[in-house]
Amino acid sequence: MEYIGVIGCGYWGPNLIRNFSIGRRSRVKACADLDPERLEHMRDLYPYLHATQDYQDILDDPEISAVAVATPARTHHALAMAALRADKHVFVEKPLALSSGECRELAMEAQLRRRVLMVGHTFVYTAAVNKIRELIASGELGEIHYINSTRVNLGVFQPDINVIWDLAPHDISIVNYVLNSRPERLAAHGKCSVRPGVEDVAFIDLEYPDGVIANIHVSWLDPCKIRRTTVVGSRKMLVYDDVSSLEKIRVYDKGVTVPPHYDSFGEFSLSYRFGDILTPRLDDSEPLKIECRHFIDCIVNGVRPRSDAEEGIAVVRALEATTESLRSDGRLLDIAYPVLET
Amino acid sequence: MEYIGVIGCGYWGPNLIRNFSIGRRSRVKACADLDPERLEHMRDLYPYLHATQDYQDILDDPEISAVAVATPARTHHALAMAALRADKHVFVEKPLALSSGECRELAMEAQLRRRVLMVGHTFVYTAAVNKIRELIASGELGEIHYINSTRVNLGVFQPDINVIWDLAPHDISIVNYVLNSRPERLAAHGKCSVRPGVEDVAFIDLEYPDGVIANIHVSWLDPCKIRRTTVVGSRKMLVYDDVSSLEKIRVYDKGVTVPPHYDSFGEFSLSYRFGDILTPRLDDSEPLKIECRHFIDCIVNGVRPRSDAEEGIAVVRALEATTESLRSDGRLLDIAYPVLET
Amino acid sequence: MEYIGVIGCGYWGPNLIRNFSIGRRSRVKACADLDPERLEHMRDLYPYLHATQDYQDILDDPEISAVAVATPARTHHALAMAALRADKHVFVEKPLALSSGECRELAMEAQLRRRVLMVGHTFVYTAAVNKIRELIASGELGEIHYINSTRVNLGVFQPDINVIWDLAPHDISIVNYVLNSRPERLAAHGKCSVRPGVEDVAFIDLEYPDGVIANIHVSWLDPCKIRRTTVVGSRKMLVYDDVSSLEKIRVYDKGVTVPPHYDSFGEFSLSYRFGDILTPRLDDSEPLKIECRHFIDCIVNGVRPRSDAEEGIAVVRALEATTESLRSDGRLLDIAYPVLET
Amino acid sequence: MEYIGVIGCGYWGPNLIRNFSIGRRSRVKACADLDPERLEHMRDLYPYLHATQDYQDILDDPEISAVAVATPARTHHALAMAALRADKHVFVEKPLALSSGECRELAMEAQLRRRVLMVGHTFVYTAAVNKIRELIASGELGEIHYINSTRVNLGVFQPDINVIWDLAPHDISIVNYVLNSRPERLAAHGKCSVRPGVEDVAFIDLEYPDGVIANIHVSWLDPCKIRRTTVVGSRKMLVYDDVSSLEKIRVYDKGVTVPPHYDSFGEFSLSYRFGDILTPRLDDSEPLKIECRHFIDCIVNGVRPRSDAEEGIAVVRALEATTESLRSDGRLLDIAYPVLET
Repeated sequence: MEYIGVIGCGYWGPNLIRNFSIGRRSRVKACADLDPERLEHMRDLYPYLHATQDYQDILDDPEISAVAVATPARTHHALAMAALRADKHVFVEKPLALSSGECRELAMEAQLRRRVLMVGHTFVYTAAVNKIRELIASGELGEIHYINSTRVNLGVFQPDINVIWDLAPHDISIVNYVLNSRPERLAAHGKCSVRPGVEDVAFIDLEYPDGVIANIHVSWLDPCKIRRTTVVGSRKMLVYDDVSSLEKIRVYDKGVTVPPHYDSFGEFSLSYRFGDILTPRLDDSEPLKIECRHFIDCIVNGVRPRSDAEEGIAVVRALEATTESLRSDGRLLDIAYPVLET
Repeated sequence: MEYIGVIGCGYWGPNLIRNFSIGRRSRVKACADLDPERLEHMRDLYPYLHATQDYQDILDDPEISAVAVATPARTHHALAMAALRADKHVFVEKPLALSSGECRELAMEAQLRRRVLMVGHTFVYTAAVNKIRELIASGELGEIHYINSTRVNLGVFQPDINVIWDLAPHDISIVNYVLNSRPERLAAHGKCSVRPGVEDVAFIDLEYPDGVIANIHVSWLDPCKIRRTTVVGSRKMLVYDDVSSLEKIRVYDKGVTVPPHYDSFGEFSLSYRFGDILTPRLDDSEPLKIECRHFIDCIVNGVRPRSDAEEGIAVVRALEATTESLRSDGRLLDIAYPVLET
Repeated sequence: MEYIGVIGCGYWGPNLIRNFSIGRRSRVKACADLDPERLEHMRDLYPYLHATQDYQDILDDPEISAVAVATPARTHHALAMAALRADKHVFVEKPLALSSGECRELAMEAQLRRRVLMVGHTFVYTAAVNKIRELIASGELGEIHYINSTRVNLGVFQPDINVIWDLAPHDISIVNYVLNSRPERLAAHGKCSVRPGVEDVAFIDLEYPDGVIANIHVSWLDPCKIRRTTVVGSRKMLVYDDVSSLEKIRVYDKGVTVPPHYDSFGEFSLSYRFGDILTPRLDDSEPLKIECRHFIDCIVNGVRPRSDAEEGIAVVRALEATTESLRSDGRLLDIAYPVLET
Repeated sequence: MEYIGVIGCGYWGPNLIRNFSIGRRSRVKACADLDPERLEHMRDLYPYLHATQDYQDILDDPEISAVAVATPARTHHALAMAALRADKHVFVEKPLALSSGECRELAMEAQLRRRVLMVGHTFVYTAAVNKIRELIASGELGEIHYINSTRVNLGVFQPDINVIWDLAPHDISIVNYVLNSRPERLAAHGKCSVRPGVEDVAFIDLEYPDGVIANIHVSWLDPCKIRRTTVVGSRKMLVYDDVSSLEKIRVYDKGVTVPPHYDSFGEFSLSYRFGDILTPRLDDSEPLKIECRHFIDCIVNGVRPRSDAEEGIAVVRALEATTESLRSDGRLLDIAYPVLET
């Protein structure tokens, strides 16, 4: 039995507590938040929890082996580092930290102390995203041409980060995971509509190896809630609509057939293929439940997290590049990934 | 009664013939196409038409006062110029020509000869786009933050231009028209998935005056037919879905209210407003009919075309900038507009 | 080459003319309508047509071998009978006539003169409806439990028949065709909302052999255009949405599994099966084109029409029963089908 | 503070417990269920609850003033009666009981003991249904022509009642409430597809005063989850889609205008009106929360429940009539409502 402490009881905290409470392998023992009202609420929901304003109480409890950090992003580094230094396994909500340097420090500390460090890229634990990864890996979609991902809604503006750091970690981690790859270059454009200096809408163009491109559109200022990713392959195409409850993925047997060779302009002719559409049945378990279970697995069985520190750093490196590109007129920037020493 | 000659009988030609045949103010007298089969088809549909392989027949006919050019884009300049030099009024499908230099030559020739030169930016003749322009001009949407426009489908690959030159003229002319403005800078990213050297998917970031930004996504390689434009204003937001037959525009009474001032980080708080959604009833006349009628109006009454040569040039200038940006790693480029001498 | 005369140039007439004009096996020679404006319009569209106010001109033309009747329903019997007596093959828009007695007279006349008599149950010529028939016949859907069909919109009120006689022929002919069967009993409920004595909304409950039931909902007074048929089988279920242009049929691999036997109330347990959804690609030819071609086939090759007089009578028998049921408080009535002597 | 006991911890029980626990006016003290596993689950969720297999414990607790019954329908009468006889206020999930006689006994017992007796017609506590009632009452929709309501899905088959008794109480209570009326006659058709003797699909035709008709379609065997009610009025029409989370109601400014008088058949002409569509913003509180609050209100302030015993009886009377109609070939039956003595 792993005893868990949860730091941060805003939106994600209670969900983490609920999911770490399922099953017989983990139990939440304590939670911390600065806001007394949130603590009161947690006590109402889970009367047996030790609910404290001082997260140090959690770190000091020797029975607690793992800590989940679900606080605003700017505090991730300090809290995760303190938890690691208290020899806890650590789960951190995305983004892992606000700079790749900070991420790397966490990764090294975790490595040194042989603790699990996992970042909450929740979507890589969904049935839909794993289905897409499978379809791509198996060659079912053919060669991937491009991916287009939209994640927009009205709100919720974050106090300390822009819309890219808030929402794009989802899209970047999804695209990285389904392509089993990482972007080499990116450019970002955006606008600060509501608060000066804080982008609330942005468009990111990414280049992956082998000429695959991706475009990500994130916004806190859209009238509709859209979470839609289109993957265009040479054999088939698919649309992943995360807002749909029952039909998250639709695979289109559609494409363009290029004639083997053609000599002149006049002979140019493509043929279009229009076939069936398949909506595969997907397991509808709550992704957070699978993610929490996976974290416990990693602790107990020494499994490497699917969303490990290296993935966390990769996403933050891309986010850093977006910030730099935004500050330099959308320039296309190379993204270098630090090598973690082992 | 204006007699019209139509050059090019592919997709748009027959539609132009049909629409110029409505009413008592214009009549199509002749059509031209290089393909004998297309001519045969036109004769079947309109037995009274003079259908010829030689467009010169049309230019030589003194009774014909106006010519519509609906051929592949690379021939627009030569055909429109020949028609103007034969003292015809000229309607050209979008894009006006393949360079702003060519466009300017056409504009100057038309000016010199006092002929109407109009470009087929069809969407500015739709009830939906005019409704959006009205809503923006009246202040109903408040200050415009950004516009996002997607125009994708599987096919139809054009032989002589990339997807941007094929589809983006629609989006650029729409955004220019509803904002009553023109982009100052843009950057473009894309990919040639199917044919080397010809982009079939692209993302364009545009900057308009007053900090308004726009993003356009065009593709010939998408499993779904999407034509969707989102306009986000400070007071209201709207979605224009051109694929919907009955509910093209939805106006969302939604927004974010910023408190008048706040002193510190801790006091930051926005409030979200969620109100009614209105789908205004729109006139459902065929836009091409309105456009053709407008062209005749311009000829008969000396009205300046809503989509005149200057607008045609503005769109082509933006398209030229996308080409240049694509060739320079998506660099953000200034767009200069030529001044037409009067 | 069969020469066709079309009587009635309202909504269906021009479509029939267009479709009978495709290909080299038939040609429309003349059309008739009482309204001079409609005739004028037909002359504009098809200048080579003999357009007349007197349908007798068509019947008297010995070159014309077949007549299509697309007039208001109350005139079907008289016009079709006159055409048959002039030894023409006859195509009649649905419903075949306003009583089964009239239908039978037409059938007997056609039989006597060895003429083709076909009724315009257009939907049985669609790819979608034929796909459903196949899926049922092949056992793919299992045993059919029930069918539910909705056909509603705002308008168009017919002057001489109620909404059932106007719209339900589609649903009844579809259900008869996909089940390869005919209803044995039915009950109807409805209301005359706008015009006294003329139902504009109705619900029909039908019983087919083997316990299959169907429910049909038709209305001229609905805010939405819906044409949706659900077929529930023991193995799979399907939804046919005729309003969708690209995804008319969706096959759901869903169902309930009943345990082989259970002894007591307490042991009752069913299991639900939720599988993939498949949208098969369908041929998108215009059904009217296929229907017109089929009519010519029947004339030339002596094929029996898919929608022959017997089917026409079957549908009218069901319609008669709805009228009787409406007049007797929705009583469930047996439907007897006349035997046609051969 | 009212202390509540909840009998039945299946689907609704836990939701009732959660909602009765909100606020300071009520508190759940105990829950009962025959299944030890469900009790264990309740103890996990609410460790402070007294969870018992014997509902008598709840009735015997003098501190408990009100009991909520959320057990299978066949036990409603016995449990509610026992609770009333123990002088508790009683909330019963729909249907109130399995016969109007049983309902009446409960109503009389509650009246005698001056206890609140309320039935869980949840939908009359939703913002959407109240909005519809308002729109009808205010005349905004004009005279109501008809209502059409569909409530279908795959599952969940109930062990002791058919699909009508399971689902139609929602539709009947909604239609009664929005019309502020009750059906005078009804006919029902259905089929037992899966289990002999238990209808799993049914169609009900209802006649309300003033010629308003309603049709209800319920099914446990449909591939799609649909909960859709269309209300057609002479001035406007509306669609209530309960499955949509954000756009539950759409009001269509559409209709048919009848000319004041017309003399002959030939002059018949209607005009159709197509106007805007409005999606009003609705409060999105959980209806069960409002319902639970209302029950406490009724206890504390002597308010008469919106869904009181009389409404519960009215719905059960209609359900009884459907059973009788199903057993007599869908005969249209008068529905008599018992007069409750005061």
